[in-house]
Amino acid sequence: MKIYLATNNKGKIREINSLFKDTGIEFIGGVDLSSVVEDGNDYRENALIKALFVYKLSGTYVVSEDSGLEVDALQGAPGIHSARYADLLKANNATDNDNIAKLLSALKDVPKDKRTAKYVSAFCFIDGGAESFFMGEVHGKIIDSPRGNRGFGYDPVFVPDGYDKTFAELGDEVKNKISHRAVASAKLRDFLVDKFVRRTV
Amino acid sequence: MKIYLATNNKGKIREINSLFKDTGIEFIGGVDLSSVVEDGNDYRENALIKALFVYKLSGTYVVSEDSGLEVDALQGAPGIHSARYADLLKANNATDNDNIAKLLSALKDVPKDKRTAKYVSAFCFIDGGAESFFMGEVHGKIIDSPRGNRGFGYDPVFVPDGYDKTFAELGDEVKNKISHRAVASAKLRDFLVDKFVRRTV
Repeated sequence: MKIYLATNNKGKIREINSLFKDTGIEFIGGVDLSSVVEDGNDYRENALIKALFVYKLSGTYVVSEDSGLEVDALQGAPGIHSARYADLLKANNATDNDNIAKLLSALKDVPKDKRTAKYVSAFCFIDGGAESFFMGEVHGKIIDSPRGNRGFGYDPVFVPDGYDKTFAELGDEVKNKISHRAVASAKLRDFLVDKFVRRTV
Repeated sequence: MKIYLATNNKGKIREINSLFKDTGIEFIGGVDLSSVVEDGNDYRENALIKALFVYKLSGTYVVSEDSGLEVDALQGAPGIHSARYADLLKANNATDNDNIAKLLSALKDVPKDKRTAKYVSAFCFIDGGAESFFMGEVHGKIIDSPRGNRGFGYDPVFVPDGYDKTFAELGDEVKNKISHRAVASAKLRDFLVDKFVRRTV
């Protein structure tokens, strides 16, 4: 069973295939998503926009994902704009460092105990009938300067609850268990295994 | 297999059970939804709000539905506000007749060939993991005075494409085949039969 993964990020394809090893389900990429405008109102809508784009080309099963960081003191910003938070010219060229710098600047007067935040992930699976979504969250706080060089996005300033290191320090061993994307993709795995695998065992 | 249907409308429970007869799946109501605030941005969100409300009380499978009428000349209004279009005081007391009168008034200067519209339905199914949605649409036009006394909502002024009678004249024999809700609920039926029934046959 091959399922398209609507992403141009080869790291994400590798990561999800590792999660699904031994299931008989394999994720494949290869569709150029650079022309897709992610103008949805929330993570689900943006994930659906990407999935539908690939579904129209492929006509078969598609999985996609959208995610973001929501900071309480910023009323949920950067949220769905996380990847392009510092991208003032809408040129799709904000780097992780630009985004982190903008976030820390926005929080510079916010005391430690008010810097709570959560990462949110929405996976989407479509097959032409149902549109199914799988949500995951991880709560934590934003520290005042970056630490660690693993992960990506806001990981160097995000310390998950129950830890004192950032996601960028903790790395995949921890992140693949407790992250927003780990929680959501575990639900996706249960769903797809139930749909495609369990019944034939 | 019993599934909660998140609605206070006994007619909807009867209708969906008739669609699922012979599947072994039975829909049950009984949860009071009068306190639910349907403030989502679209049909999917409103359906999800209702389903989550019942899921939190029941802890088991829940189906819900949200629907509306989108008129092109009104930029998609009344849309998610269809049921309370004429409800200026937000008192939840707009009748079908009030809503139809407001719609015809808004369209009074719009010529016949510009009165295109569609009904949209979104079913939602949740089980604590996936949130699955099933969309349906039916295209048609809005006539300039009500005809027929079957159906509900805007049915007396909605003529589906390919017919010259309104949904309120055509009644359930036609509506249960071509309506937005029929299209969406057929997808839901396929999904639930695949999930709960087919594998045990």
